[in-house]
Amino acid sequence: MSVISREVHLVSRPEGMPEPENFSLVETEVGDPGSGEVLVQNLYMSVDPAMRPPLTNGQAKLDHVLGGSAIGRVIASKNESLPEGALVQGRYGFREYYVSDGEGLRAVETEGEPLTTHLHVLGSTGLTAWSGMLIVGKLQEEENVFVSAAAGAVGSVACQIAKIKNCRVAASCGSDDKVAFLKDELGVDYAFNYKTVGSIGRELHIGLPDGIDVYFDNVGGKHLDAACGQMRLWGRIPVCGMISAYNNKGARSEGVTTLSNMVYNRVTMQGFLVSDYNDLRDDFLADMRGWMAAGKLKYRETVNEGIENAAASLIGLLQGDNTGKMLVRLAPE
Amino acid sequence: MSVISREVHLVSRPEGMPEPENFSLVETEVGDPGSGEVLVQNLYMSVDPAMRPPLTNGQAKLDHVLGGSAIGRVIASKNESLPEGALVQGRYGFREYYVSDGEGLRAVETEGEPLTTHLHVLGSTGLTAWSGMLIVGKLQEEENVFVSAAAGAVGSVACQIAKIKNCRVAASCGSDDKVAFLKDELGVDYAFNYKTVGSIGRELHIGLPDGIDVYFDNVGGKHLDAACGQMRLWGRIPVCGMISAYNNKGARSEGVTTLSNMVYNRVTMQGFLVSDYNDLRDDFLADMRGWMAAGKLKYRETVNEGIENAAASLIGLLQGDNTGKMLVRLAPE
Repeated sequence: MSVISREVHLVSRPEGMPEPENFSLVETEVGDPGSGEVLVQNLYMSVDPAMRPPLTNGQAKLDHVLGGSAIGRVIASKNESLPEGALVQGRYGFREYYVSDGEGLRAVETEGEPLTTHLHVLGSTGLTAWSGMLIVGKLQEEENVFVSAAAGAVGSVACQIAKIKNCRVAASCGSDDKVAFLKDELGVDYAFNYKTVGSIGRELHIGLPDGIDVYFDNVGGKHLDAACGQMRLWGRIPVCGMISAYNNKGARSEGVTTLSNMVYNRVTMQGFLVSDYNDLRDDFLADMRGWMAAGKLKYRETVNEGIENAAASLIGLLQGDNTGKMLVRLAPE
Repeated sequence: MSVISREVHLVSRPEGMPEPENFSLVETEVGDPGSGEVLVQNLYMSVDPAMRPPLTNGQAKLDHVLGGSAIGRVIASKNESLPEGALVQGRYGFREYYVSDGEGLRAVETEGEPLTTHLHVLGSTGLTAWSGMLIVGKLQEEENVFVSAAAGAVGSVACQIAKIKNCRVAASCGSDDKVAFLKDELGVDYAFNYKTVGSIGRELHIGLPDGIDVYFDNVGGKHLDAACGQMRLWGRIPVCGMISAYNNKGARSEGVTTLSNMVYNRVTMQGFLVSDYNDLRDDFLADMRGWMAAGKLKYRETVNEGIENAAASLIGLLQGDNTGKMLVRLAPE
């Protein structure tokens, strides 16, 4: 039962913001699964900021299908541990079908929650926020917290974890609608649209007048420059990403000039990747499911339709089109 | 037996490099020690980069004597634990005599080494390098290490600790004489004069072609910008100081644009102050005395004479006049 799969290839490396011409949609024939293999039809794929750097730094190969997290259903199986009908998650995004020997695939076990949540609040996006805040950031009760790109998939979970820990939370985002979402739905204490305010530093002085204990950095550049200068004694800066730099040459951010405050206040800044915290997934899921059941954890999704819109979705994400998690639906559940 | 003491006051706050006019030499009468007190005559005082920020940030009071580490001799005592003749160390620099109730004073116990070493390799300067490298920087055997301001008091100890741990060491400094000192006396593997090279980044590529595991940062700005982009997986940046920023408004450094590498390579940058590691002083002294006895730890001193040259010595230090530790001798031993 070979199938025709459409998949997104990188055909040229973007300088600056990616353009549709950097990608092409290619049809390829996917054969029958061999012994020990499965044929999977993808249902949903994730679109996230971490996909940008590989387009330029060489990790993504030219004329080759892109990667990224996706959830699919096994539609033909010669692997006992992954029977037909099983839902599986792996790093096979940006394509409609694939054959795998099961290496790197994980069975998705839902407990009544929507399947898509396993690509965000209950998936790597959520684990990113959870490990960044609680493990890297060592968040304590009632601290003062700043989150940038706060209306995005990771940021919105980070804000809510801080609120669950009774922290005061200031949050930045890129539109007035997102400001309303952060205040009204997520309950952050102070939210601002960084594109329209005069100075991020002044907003932080207003929102967190006693300074910042934890800055969850998704952005780098001007955000980090403003936040670093206002870090309190023993402050922590878990660096999840630097989306402001991803479209610049060499992934260079705007210059950060306030790092000397790290000495006086013994601040720790630490970059991290979610893949380093996979061994904590059970603890993470227990926390998150508990908070969801208690109504303390909300989310939004921005869902586009069809593999033909996958590249445009990534470009849209990098331009801030999404509130909450950006997904592409590749087939009906 | 009251005495006349000369002391250095801050009379105006410098913008940029301090000028002689920012300071004045003031005579003051120091009275007899009361019950429980001692009268101390200072012998040597330390001059170090950490003295610069307080001149501007308000920690140093106007029309008030400056502080800083000094070693003196008790010349009159009404305190049993600090008898006449005892050598004591405390935060009473920039003056010739003082009265103290002993709070914050520590008896100096030499074991044959020169007294001045307790103001550098066996004092806070040495503890700064030791704790920064081994505790904050978690230095391991045979790593790749970069030290900036490497010919200074802290930097030269940091380089030698790294060599003792069999690391490959690249070092930057501000003169060709210092390059020779680093290579020929301290045995660093690659040294360069940052003022005359085309690019710090290119020097680091040559000196540490496999990248950097630990960057001991004394400088910030362009040094940090170059080093951060070349940090290896799980690299550490203990930030001891940012002397390049101290003479700028708000202690702002030149912009650092390479921080996104911290995410990909999970780099940790941590500011620290030596005062947080005083409880490790015994471990530190045991290490340092062992290395000195084995001939593995060398030092240089730049010693100026007289309280009347104390302010000029601080200005000279900030201009890089010293190799090794900058001291002022205030009275003969």
